[in-house]
Formats: sequence, C-alpha cells, structure tokens
Amino acid sequence: MGFWKSLFSGTDASPAPKAAPMERYVGDEADDRATTNRIFFSTERDLDLYELEELCDAVGWSRRPLRKVKKAIQHSFLVVSMWEQRGAQRRLIGFSRATSDHAFNATVWDVVVHPDFQGKGMGKALMKYMIKKLRGEDISNITLFADPQVVNFYRNLGFMSDPEGIKGMFWYPD
Amino acid sequence: MGFWKSLFSGTDASPAPKAAPMERYVGDEADDRATTNRIFFSTERDLDLYELEELCDAVGWSRRPLRKVKKAIQHSFLVVSMWEQRGAQRRLIGFSRATSDHAFNATVWDVVVHPDFQGKGMGKALMKYMIKKLRGEDISNITLFADPQVVNFYRNLGFMSDPEGIKGMFWYPD
Repeated sequence: MGFWKSLFSGTDASPAPKAAPMERYVGDEADDRATTNRIFFSTERDLDLYELEELCDAVGWSRRPLRKVKKAIQHSFLVVSMWEQRGAQRRLIGFSRATSDHAFNATVWDVVVHPDFQGKGMGKALMKYMIKKLRGEDISNITLFADPQVVNFYRNLGFMSDPEGIKGMFWYPD
Repeated sequence: MGFWKSLFSGTDASPAPKAAPMERYVGDEADDRATTNRIFFSTERDLDLYELEELCDAVGWSRRPLRKVKKAIQHSFLVVSMWEQRGAQRRLIGFSRATSDHAFNATVWDVVVHPDFQGKGMGKALMKYMIKKLRGEDISNITLFADPQVVNFYRNLGFMSDPEGIKGMFWYPD
C-alpha cells in the first residue's frame, strides 16, 4: 500500500478505500514519476480563488464573480480539489463540489479537470473520490446535470440518465 | 389587494409579488370560502414531522426516518409549507424544499400537495412561491428532477427538460 498511498492520497483523515481503483488507475499513468510526483485530493475550502479561476479559464468556462464563487464554496456540502505535487510545488489540477441536504440527496456541480491532465483517468479519480466522500456521509442519492459530451463519462462511473423516466429540469430567469 | 392578501399570504415579511398570479388563481377556486378560509405559505422549519409524514403518506410516498427528514429540513436552503386555515384550524396541505449553494444553483425536492387539494392550482402556487423566494435570494439556476407524470406540470411553470442536451443523472449505491 505504501507506494500507492504516497502517490495518491487524501489530506483528510478518512481511511483509504479498500478497492482503491482510483489509486491503481492513476498509478498506471504515473509510473515514471511516482517517486517525486504525486496527485492528491483535499476537502479544504480555503482555496486560492484566483487559482481556481485560472483552472476554470483553462477549460473555457464563463467567468463568475469571485464573491459568489466564495459563497458557493462556503455553502457547498462537499468541496474537493485535486492537486499535483512536484517536489515542493503544488498545482491545482481539478475541482468539484456538491450541494446537499446532509441526509438524502447530493448534487454535484462544477466538475473540472485541467486540460493537461485530461484523458489520464483524473476526472474518474476525482468523481470516485466525490462518491466515496458522499457515501461516507450516508448520502444515497447522488445527482448531477451532465453536458451531452460527458454523459458517457458519468455513465461509466455508474450514473444513470433519466432512470424510470425522471427528467432533469431547469428554470432560468427570463 | 386586501381581499387577496387575506386569502393568500405568506407568513414572512417579504413584499407581496406585483403580478400576484398565484393569488388570483387560488382566488378563482376559493371565492365561496374567501371570508373564512385562506391558504397561506410559510418558510418556518419547525414543522410537526408527523403532520408532514401524514401528508407524504397521503400521496403514497415511501416512509423515511424522521431523524433524517429533520436533518434534511435543517440543511435545506429553503423550506416552504402550504397551509389551509379554516377559522382557528390549520392544516398542512403542501410542502417543498430546496438545497442550494446560496449563490448560483438550487435544486427543488419533495414537492407534495395533498390529494384533496390537487387539481386546484395549489401545486402551481407552491412552485411559484418557491421560485419567487429563490429568485429573491439571487439564485438564477433552479433545477429539479421530475417524475414522468409531472414533467408537463413543471414545463408549464417554465422549467425546461434537457436544455442543450444536459441530462439529469443519478447514482445509487449497489
């Protein structure tokens, strides 16, 4: 476990997952830099909002007022950031958060992985970490709204679209 | 305004809506009992959970542990109950709640109207009240997951299903 643990570990005190598929997956991609680099997750909320904005810019998201982003992070049930550590340097490479009633439902928002790290299983690892944390809080119904190009990504993670004809619906102001 | 105000008013201090479509709508149905009965909304959270359970039983929902229901209500961003007042007696006839990040998104859950009051525009009034309150908090993206039989109900309220191909997705434990 030592190798994988150092390569891919959370900063919180939760026990490592038993099956650890995300650790293995990332390990496959990261063999060549395993000794010096690692990818890790954090549930800390005191993120540098400019660093987060830079990450969101990198995937082409519309900018949002940092004041509102701060409020949204504050009032999310779960906030997960994904980091690459190279020596002493840390780089924010992924982010996701979830709102919840702390009892039944959670809804995942703002899943983002830096383009340099896409296609390497990082998004999968991030989502698996989200699911693990939400399940650890006894949330049984995890929901999200997926853009068309990522529906299959979420399907591969076990998300179902429109189960029993349930439709995701949106109301926007006129 | 006086007549409608007494017939259909919130218990909170928010100003009455300008167009007041819900007040008119319910008024149409309630002309004959306008002087003694009224329908009103409340955002108070100290609901009698057994009364709420009775309401949910009436529409055939599966029972949920009251401990968790209490927690969910506590951690919802908005909780709206709908009441019929006849003289000194109050009866819980509707309920809904929303989770939110307090900034961008809200998700509406557990919309229920007692069968005795269905088909009278009460669900519409309840949802319009929810939307008004969420908009008042500057939430611009109101979402929900609609069972197939209520998709048109929400569509008539201005909700869109799968806008731009966005899919509502669910993850349940195995």
